[in-house]
Amino acid sequence: MLINKNWKIQYFDVGQVRDLTIADPNYIDHFWMSAKVPGDVHSILREKNLIDDPFFGHNDLKSKWVEEKVWWYRTEFTFEKNLDQDERLELIFEGLDTFATVYLNGVELGSTENMFISHTFDVTREIVDGRNVLAVKFNPVSYQLKDKEKNYWAGFGKDRIWARKAQYHFGWDWGPQILTVGIWKEVRLEKRKIAKIESVYARTLDIQDSRALVQIDIYTKSFVKGKPLHAEITLKDPEQQFFQTVNMEQDRATLKLNIDHPNLWWTHDLGEPNLYQLSVVLKWEDEVLDTYQTEIGIRTMEVMQRDREGNPRFTFVLNGVEIFAKGANWIPVDSFLGSAPESRYRHLIQLAKEANMNMLRVWGGGIYEKDIFYQECNRQGILVWQDFMFACALYPDYNRNYMENVREEVVSVIKRLRNHPSIALWCGNNENDWLYEVERAAGNIHTPFYGEKIYHELIPELLEELDPSRVYWPSSPYGGNDHNSEEEGDRHNWQVWHGNVEPRKFGQNLGQNISVEGVSFRNYKKDRTRFCSEFGMHASANRYTLEKNLPEGTFYWGSDELAYRNKDYHHIKGILLMEGYTGIPKNVEEYMNYSMLTQAEGLKYGMEHYRRNKPQTSGALIWQLNDCWPGTSWSMIDYYLLPKASYYYSKKFNAPLLFTLEHDPGDDLHLWIVNDRLEDVEDILVFEVFRFNGELVYSKEFFIDVKGNTSTRIASLTEAEVLQGQPAEQVVVRLKSLKKKAEENYYYLRNHKDLQLPKAKLQVKVIPEKQEVEIRTDCFARFVKLELPAEKIIFSDNFFDLLPSERKIIKIRHLDGKTISLDGLSVSAINGSA
Amino acid sequence: MLINKNWKIQYFDVGQVRDLTIADPNYIDHFWMSAKVPGDVHSILREKNLIDDPFFGHNDLKSKWVEEKVWWYRTEFTFEKNLDQDERLELIFEGLDTFATVYLNGVELGSTENMFISHTFDVTREIVDGRNVLAVKFNPVSYQLKDKEKNYWAGFGKDRIWARKAQYHFGWDWGPQILTVGIWKEVRLEKRKIAKIESVYARTLDIQDSRALVQIDIYTKSFVKGKPLHAEITLKDPEQQFFQTVNMEQDRATLKLNIDHPNLWWTHDLGEPNLYQLSVVLKWEDEVLDTYQTEIGIRTMEVMQRDREGNPRFTFVLNGVEIFAKGANWIPVDSFLGSAPESRYRHLIQLAKEANMNMLRVWGGGIYEKDIFYQECNRQGILVWQDFMFACALYPDYNRNYMENVREEVVSVIKRLRNHPSIALWCGNNENDWLYEVERAAGNIHTPFYGEKIYHELIPELLEELDPSRVYWPSSPYGGNDHNSEEEGDRHNWQVWHGNVEPRKFGQNLGQNISVEGVSFRNYKKDRTRFCSEFGMHASANRYTLEKNLPEGTFYWGSDELAYRNKDYHHIKGILLMEGYTGIPKNVEEYMNYSMLTQAEGLKYGMEHYRRNKPQTSGALIWQLNDCWPGTSWSMIDYYLLPKASYYYSKKFNAPLLFTLEHDPGDDLHLWIVNDRLEDVEDILVFEVFRFNGELVYSKEFFIDVKGNTSTRIASLTEAEVLQGQPAEQVVVRLKSLKKKAEENYYYLRNHKDLQLPKAKLQVKVIPEKQEVEIRTDCFARFVKLELPAEKIIFSDNFFDLLPSERKIIKIRHLDGKTISLDGLSVSAINGSA
Repeated sequence: MLINKNWKIQYFDVGQVRDLTIADPNYIDHFWMSAKVPGDVHSILREKNLIDDPFFGHNDLKSKWVEEKVWWYRTEFTFEKNLDQDERLELIFEGLDTFATVYLNGVELGSTENMFISHTFDVTREIVDGRNVLAVKFNPVSYQLKDKEKNYWAGFGKDRIWARKAQYHFGWDWGPQILTVGIWKEVRLEKRKIAKIESVYARTLDIQDSRALVQIDIYTKSFVKGKPLHAEITLKDPEQQFFQTVNMEQDRATLKLNIDHPNLWWTHDLGEPNLYQLSVVLKWEDEVLDTYQTEIGIRTMEVMQRDREGNPRFTFVLNGVEIFAKGANWIPVDSFLGSAPESRYRHLIQLAKEANMNMLRVWGGGIYEKDIFYQECNRQGILVWQDFMFACALYPDYNRNYMENVREEVVSVIKRLRNHPSIALWCGNNENDWLYEVERAAGNIHTPFYGEKIYHELIPELLEELDPSRVYWPSSPYGGNDHNSEEEGDRHNWQVWHGNVEPRKFGQNLGQNISVEGVSFRNYKKDRTRFCSEFGMHASANRYTLEKNLPEGTFYWGSDELAYRNKDYHHIKGILLMEGYTGIPKNVEEYMNYSMLTQAEGLKYGMEHYRRNKPQTSGALIWQLNDCWPGTSWSMIDYYLLPKASYYYSKKFNAPLLFTLEHDPGDDLHLWIVNDRLEDVEDILVFEVFRFNGELVYSKEFFIDVKGNTSTRIASLTEAEVLQGQPAEQVVVRLKSLKKKAEENYYYLRNHKDLQLPKAKLQVKVIPEKQEVEIRTDCFARFVKLELPAEKIIFSDNFFDLLPSERKIIKIRHLDGKTISLDGLSVSAINGSA
Repeated sequence: MLINKNWKIQYFDVGQVRDLTIADPNYIDHFWMSAKVPGDVHSILREKNLIDDPFFGHNDLKSKWVEEKVWWYRTEFTFEKNLDQDERLELIFEGLDTFATVYLNGVELGSTENMFISHTFDVTREIVDGRNVLAVKFNPVSYQLKDKEKNYWAGFGKDRIWARKAQYHFGWDWGPQILTVGIWKEVRLEKRKIAKIESVYARTLDIQDSRALVQIDIYTKSFVKGKPLHAEITLKDPEQQFFQTVNMEQDRATLKLNIDHPNLWWTHDLGEPNLYQLSVVLKWEDEVLDTYQTEIGIRTMEVMQRDREGNPRFTFVLNGVEIFAKGANWIPVDSFLGSAPESRYRHLIQLAKEANMNMLRVWGGGIYEKDIFYQECNRQGILVWQDFMFACALYPDYNRNYMENVREEVVSVIKRLRNHPSIALWCGNNENDWLYEVERAAGNIHTPFYGEKIYHELIPELLEELDPSRVYWPSSPYGGNDHNSEEEGDRHNWQVWHGNVEPRKFGQNLGQNISVEGVSFRNYKKDRTRFCSEFGMHASANRYTLEKNLPEGTFYWGSDELAYRNKDYHHIKGILLMEGYTGIPKNVEEYMNYSMLTQAEGLKYGMEHYRRNKPQTSGALIWQLNDCWPGTSWSMIDYYLLPKASYYYSKKFNAPLLFTLEHDPGDDLHLWIVNDRLEDVEDILVFEVFRFNGELVYSKEFFIDVKGNTSTRIASLTEAEVLQGQPAEQVVVRLKSLKKKAEENYYYLRNHKDLQLPKAKLQVKVIPEKQEVEIRTDCFARFVKLELPAEKIIFSDNFFDLLPSERKIIKIRHLDGKTISLDGLSVSAINGSA
């Protein structure tokens, strides 16, 4: 039974009222405001116009008062209490954000201080027949933590280290500081009889010779002793079905299933993400007591850390196949998590898949994601790198109470998530090991590495017990001499954007070179990492997104309001990055174009580099896929689910078969084929150089015959040869697959700012009934951009390049399937317009 | 390493100072006062004359301010930090009273809220080489519990239900309300290497044919993985020695030992309390990592709840022998637990043994006692009825945080105590089940039975896992239709003193008859209980005790100050009790004599009754052995360890072989032999009636031949026959063993107030060098009393009766073995003086 109706909220100052007065069933909350549950206080206030939209302008600062209040939730519901002796009633809060005390009918059931996990209370006795009143008090975060030590190193705000609350709520370099509060997940009453299924653990032990061995452990909790229980386990997919009964012994049972010719779970790029329905029915005699249902995948997953020659590797191996992980880092989908619809997850994961991503990293400053996230990843065949929720800080692992809270969290999270086939790896934290060592070496930290007991003792110990099936990686990045080393493990490449000077070694200073060269994306080329789990750069959000959230008159380059969208503290880095590639923008139009172009080309440059280095490099995850608010950030898709240029680029640079050119201005050109598919490829690569008027300057065909799962350099050419005397500033290079096995790939031999692009005139034909646009150009059109002033608009392609000989048809869709008015469509190129 | 030096304390108002400021190692505590650790704040303040002795007059109310302050403890110590990689350092607080936060070198290690258990913190990293500063903050109880529901039923104060602090601190009907605070047990630093012994569980599984099977379970905690550990177990007593080595597997090992002709552990009245030294040495290769040493007893202990005919019983069965449990209820030895010396425990247990007690009940409103208590009981051969610390209240078992605290407590307590052979039974609480049902039936309680989950779910579940070797009894009293029924289980007889009208049945009102008849000790005779775990009545403290604590001019009967010594809220009950037996006292001398005489005769009347009913009644525990302050109460021994009359009586009425007379004024006289020894007894019982001038009125000899472990009525006589025409008011009856196997036992055929006692002149000869007194009397002397104005004075007999023909030599000893000045000795009788 869901308890999601009749909720009301009200706020008080700390100490203003007696808790028991408000919790009393007879307290009159008549004058309180109604509230959505699940949800969050800010969103409720916003809906009632009690606060202005915190995302607009500087409004987040106007609603700071919300964080300093004690917030009470109350509801009443009717319950017919006819419980038998062997029945129990559990009240379950799936999520309380964060310092909550729960009362049922005036009785204090307990206090919680962890938003990441569910909280269950036995209310068998406390529930009454008829009207019941549930009340939840939330204390302000600042009040709760006022006596805590906050002088340790912690990025983006120091209060957060004591709160088991999403760390990005305290502000990050891509999102505002908004301390949400409220009942952010479902509230349920569950009737239990005799026993319940406490958890199930299903995993593939082995796959050999078309035969899989699957182990299923069942853990129950009996409320009534002496009743023999058994579990009926069904495992099925459209082709196979297994059924078995096991007796529970001391609340445990284990089942091993041998499955012939299993339909394995694959990432979408390698096969089908086949899922089996697992159902566990707990019974006493013939009576069903509890059921558990989930989808599992039969698959093995390892991380190869040495190749056959003993060289360091960091290669995910799925069902025996070494894969190159392409994808992005996932941050929470909204600042207001409780109010974010599930569709947001479906859309983002669908978009990730369409961009040929096969891995998402759930980053440690967010949340252990909602179930829908993992379900979608399971179904779409996307792997998950799962961080534990610790990021860029020292955590008070010396505090016993804090550690008990963390222990409960880790146990709960492992049990909730361990059956998802998509989860490939557990990771202890984000950047804590690396940055601690860097800052300590720099003399900025004088404390021990607080938090180490969490990642280096507690989590691995619990995983050994609760999920030995997956690799545990203590931190990201980790491995080598300097946790962020290239030579071992994973690394975060922040040479680009942040200007870090690497490689370094333990104990050395981490230099910073904040200059055009220092932050340039061409630094990616130096990176021979085994696995790049973070790399990326900023781009503007889309015009619609910015316009909607900037106060009138402030939508211009250099405005304070526009700057406020950017939470990275050194805006100069983004400007230097553009300066090197596009030049510094002079107005907001240029800012949007230049930053998007730089990001798109930069990520392409990086990802293609990493892919060429396969398998020594075995993965690259872009920072960051999405946004939690309408700001400007590293994201590829902005808050309104409008992709930036880099997203459209990524569909191409992530394509399983990639024809790629390794080149920097003035250097030779090296042609590579990266084949992530398992099948060998025979094809013809057509290498062409065009002048911007469309004239073919140079063309050469290369016969391709590459093995599956390889990266191969097939040829090198000099600039002189391919330019045939033309200025490098006036040509575009295209790589094309004769058999159309690979995407067309455009390159420029000079930085954008140095190109001598002519002015292009686009011809645009809008076909609303087909939700299509047809585009042509009179001369080469660079970075052709389609814009619509609406959310969730996806183009079949965007920010593309167009030769005058071509006709491009773009399909337009709304993520919710709505028909889109194309009236407001604008089409332009960086060197032209319609 | 003990951390008991250099402690200082200071107080602050709530919110007056920042915690981290005080916890900072560089905080200047120069002006703080020095403090004893272990100890308590009140005792420290008392020593420095910052408060007046809270036990004197009404001073407890003068020091109430102490309870409302935040108290900080600080100390510094030097530590040479040369820890290896595989070493750990643990900081252990054996006892913190109660709401404490612990800081080491400014780092907040955690908060605790349970005074009953030890608290361990890993400080391997937090300790520094050289000077270390430890700080502990104690919040006021009232502050900590201010938001809690306190409107449930709870005797003697409602705050206490939320605090895992000794419940009697909140005041009881025999002790003041003094909320102590402080570090009340030792603080230690323990260096660990690789692993530690987490706990050991030794128990006798079976004894058959002179062969015992002993099981020893060892639980370790490894800090370092992959080191194979083994344990060397030695079990030895002066005659036997067993040595065995076991390998630890996953931090566990189990050993079963077969012991031929074991030297069994017996209570002191049945045999020797033989103990074996158990030593467990944990090793890695040849290196000793940890050791555990304890004394265990080889013994079986059951509670027979049905006899062979199926009739209800509640008989402790030790090594197959049904025993009658004689003893008393034990309350904490002091209001100021942290400052009570261990000698107090030794003395009290020694006195209990000398009074032929074989069982003490650690009552649920106090504490799980200090180790010394159990060690002494083991060594002295005294059984322990161990309550869990819940008493006379509803406890918030609906609160998850509270229940987590309780769970930790129960686990910790069971592990700490389970190896003590003296502990015979675990009991869930004191009177909660009974009084809840009574009060609910009376319409005074409208809530559920809060707390039931603790006694009826949590504790039995944990005991099943952690100590299946002992009986668990949910509450005292418990069993039957009315938890306080005679027919099953145990009961508390509060017909006497409190005037309860029983039997009752579930749902009925519990009547009260506060009248001379209603509160009379003659009501014991109606009681056919299986086991009387509480019965008793008040007596004055000894003169020395009262005089020392009453302000000048207030030591008189009827003074407000004297009344304040009595924390029972209806003083009338004590007066009615005396009224029925001695008459109402007219002055303080009479009060002391009359109340002591009534208590002594009343307890004798009760205990002899229960013993005669053996084995249908199988135990009787007097409420209460000791006092926690110098008040007037049910105790047999007052606060200064000066026994009251009842104590000296109990040496006789508890004697293993008891010649006893069942008689009430006007009724026939029934002679019984109660033989608690296992050996048969052949003897002559000499029944004599004397006039008070010493003249023998009647004499009869009865040949005795009774079996071991029996109670037998051997004869009945009429008053007329034994009085031989003399007035019943003018005679004393003496039962005597011709073979001196039993103590002489004096009876009066009428209540004391009706006796016509002549005035006796005592001849007293003091022999200081022998620490002896010789006493004679010219006519019958009733209740001959020796008094010395000092603490801890024990007479070989006191409050005795003396015939003119006799010469009584009394040895005097000081409990600490000191030589006693007998200058102040006074000797008197209730009917005479020296």
